[in-house]
Amino acid sequence: MLSKKIHAALEGSSAIRAMFVEGKELAAKVGAENVFDFSLGNPATPAPGRLNQAIRDLLDEENPLTLHGYMSNSGYEDVREAIASNLNSRFGTDFTWKNIVMTVGAAGGLNIIFKTILDPGDEVIVFAPFFGEYKNYAANFDASVVAVKPDYETFQPDLAEFEKAFTQKTKAVLINTPNNPTGVIYSDATMKEIARILKSKEEFYHKEIYLVSDEPYRELVYDNAKENFLTKYYDNTIVGYSFSKSLSLPGERIGYVVVPNEAAEAEDLLAGIEVANRTLGFVNAPSLMQKAVAACIDETTNLEFYDKNRKDLYEGLVKLGFTCIKPQGAFYLWVKSPVENEAEFVAEAKKFNLILVKGSAFGCGGYVRLAYCIPNEKIKRSLDAFAELAKVYHLFGQTL
Amino acid sequence: MLSKKIHAALEGSSAIRAMFVEGKELAAKVGAENVFDFSLGNPATPAPGRLNQAIRDLLDEENPLTLHGYMSNSGYEDVREAIASNLNSRFGTDFTWKNIVMTVGAAGGLNIIFKTILDPGDEVIVFAPFFGEYKNYAANFDASVVAVKPDYETFQPDLAEFEKAFTQKTKAVLINTPNNPTGVIYSDATMKEIARILKSKEEFYHKEIYLVSDEPYRELVYDNAKENFLTKYYDNTIVGYSFSKSLSLPGERIGYVVVPNEAAEAEDLLAGIEVANRTLGFVNAPSLMQKAVAACIDETTNLEFYDKNRKDLYEGLVKLGFTCIKPQGAFYLWVKSPVENEAEFVAEAKKFNLILVKGSAFGCGGYVRLAYCIPNEKIKRSLDAFAELAKVYHLFGQTL
Repeated sequence: MLSKKIHAALEGSSAIRAMFVEGKELAAKVGAENVFDFSLGNPATPAPGRLNQAIRDLLDEENPLTLHGYMSNSGYEDVREAIASNLNSRFGTDFTWKNIVMTVGAAGGLNIIFKTILDPGDEVIVFAPFFGEYKNYAANFDASVVAVKPDYETFQPDLAEFEKAFTQKTKAVLINTPNNPTGVIYSDATMKEIARILKSKEEFYHKEIYLVSDEPYRELVYDNAKENFLTKYYDNTIVGYSFSKSLSLPGERIGYVVVPNEAAEAEDLLAGIEVANRTLGFVNAPSLMQKAVAACIDETTNLEFYDKNRKDLYEGLVKLGFTCIKPQGAFYLWVKSPVENEAEFVAEAKKFNLILVKGSAFGCGGYVRLAYCIPNEKIKRSLDAFAELAKVYHLFGQTL
Repeated sequence: MLSKKIHAALEGSSAIRAMFVEGKELAAKVGAENVFDFSLGNPATPAPGRLNQAIRDLLDEENPLTLHGYMSNSGYEDVREAIASNLNSRFGTDFTWKNIVMTVGAAGGLNIIFKTILDPGDEVIVFAPFFGEYKNYAANFDASVVAVKPDYETFQPDLAEFEKAFTQKTKAVLINTPNNPTGVIYSDATMKEIARILKSKEEFYHKEIYLVSDEPYRELVYDNAKENFLTKYYDNTIVGYSFSKSLSLPGERIGYVVVPNEAAEAEDLLAGIEVANRTLGFVNAPSLMQKAVAACIDETTNLEFYDKNRKDLYEGLVKLGFTCIKPQGAFYLWVKSPVENEAEFVAEAKKFNLILVKGSAFGCGGYVRLAYCIPNEKIKRSLDAFAELAKVYHLFGQTL
């Protein structure tokens, strides 16, 4: 009765959402305060106060027919201009409102980009580990993802493998830095090499191959790392952005797509993305929230909150003997499973009320992801539970 | 460079949006006050004041992490419960929150319904004239629409033709009443006969065939017509609803889907729709707006505003000699073109600053659609322009 695709999607449904549900069930049994739920990337620090004030001001000052009404499928021009100006001042670009399309979050953005450029049978190269939904997004357009393994020391992409992953069917390379699930930021050297390989493959195959940059964690960087914006490395770059993390608005579904003028036939791409936004059923990004984020475009989230969690969790786990990749951005910690099958490790951890997500959900078994967007006091208390878990695997404490 | 599907969509892009752009261009030349733009179904009466107050209250009282945060992909349970209760009290149904999925407008709702039930090659029967986007929504899932012609006297569906339109590939019948573009409400007799034919076809083909009811105009009914909610006629009914028209919120993208328990394997359908909401990239309906519409669930739009426009325009045009279908709901007037090719009529009308949309955009040539959601004073002034247009075609005035 259900379509074949939805049947398949139900069978292999989101491991992240499944662990979130397991965490909720556990909370009902032992009390929410006793469950350490590292499953979901749901921001834990509230939206800046200025955001709510901006909404109040809009309600007071704007004509409700404009504030809640239809606009161009690509969004309000003044909102798009505000975003273009903000990007220009931060990254030295020269966008106008015409380069920006407002979207229903980054998930909506990636889907309208894919609808615009992917034909059935096309391939999208992704770097493992990667956000599992990318597979579903490509499958929406009968395309598939081709995963490239990481360098297991640094979790930068393995660029020799990347070079081998291209075929005649490669239409795009999808990149996500700061990375979900590893927290790694791709280095300048990595990005330059990715761009060089892309250019050589475009020449070899005599066609455009797009770099699609999924940037929801752009502003979540630590240790004075530079915020990066990827259009500068490679002309045929399309950016998908979301305010979900930077302004703690994941439920509001608000983001944007950027197509630089340097992209081949940029105007056609923008026209296609606008039509895809309409015909996929998004129609336009939510109107009030478009104007609210434009009013708060230079606000930032409480980075110190996540940074403290990051340090406490990373240092705590390393001291207990766990092997962790030190996160440079986003709010995820990537931990090596002490046993080869990390599903066993996830199950064992649950006995100590620790809710983790298995790495195979991100195309990279043998590891687990911890989303450390929970209250800091819980991070601290969780370390006692991790200490018990470490004993199960006879881990030896380390000094940093 | 663009995908084949998007290329095709760009070529045959929305005739409604195209006329909207022509209207804007004309306004730039002759002044907005002199253009009578009947192109777009953009509500012209503001959202009820209580809606903005509800948003202010939510900002004051709710935890921002909840108000702007992730929830279940199907929406907040309390919001879904409020909608279920409201439907139950109005229509004698017995829904709970589990029957309701919050969506990014009705367009988002129809797309996740289609993704859940349609396989490539499937057919969806629609009744001409119909909203042109239905074709794009079916094409998103490699399905197609099969149009059934109307009874040209009443613009009720031609049910003898309907009965002949079924094939082994028919998976759904899509219905829209009050209708865009005719303003006609399908009669109780029509609905009963549609249900009888559907049941007999389900038996004949030994499979479920869904009635998908697109109900954005449910509350926009005149002359004391009864608001209709279509789940009562046929068990395998799925409803898509939008608050765009009833609360004048088209830019906010907020609506819901209803799957009644009577539908075959309702739980599987709901699970599929939830997954489709996530994987198509909607993720969830905008969070703040979910809670805002729940707080205003018994509010209604300013029906008198549209009703006055309806009467003034219908009576004015009939008096000038135009042949019009008297609208019973929605905010559209369906007018017979005085010449066979209605594109010529649309072009002629534009000379008098009248912006109409050709019926062929709705799969029904020889007619034009007028969206009468514009200020009443403009309706009145437009009648002078229509009087000039009537002279071109030597129309004779009629008395009502």
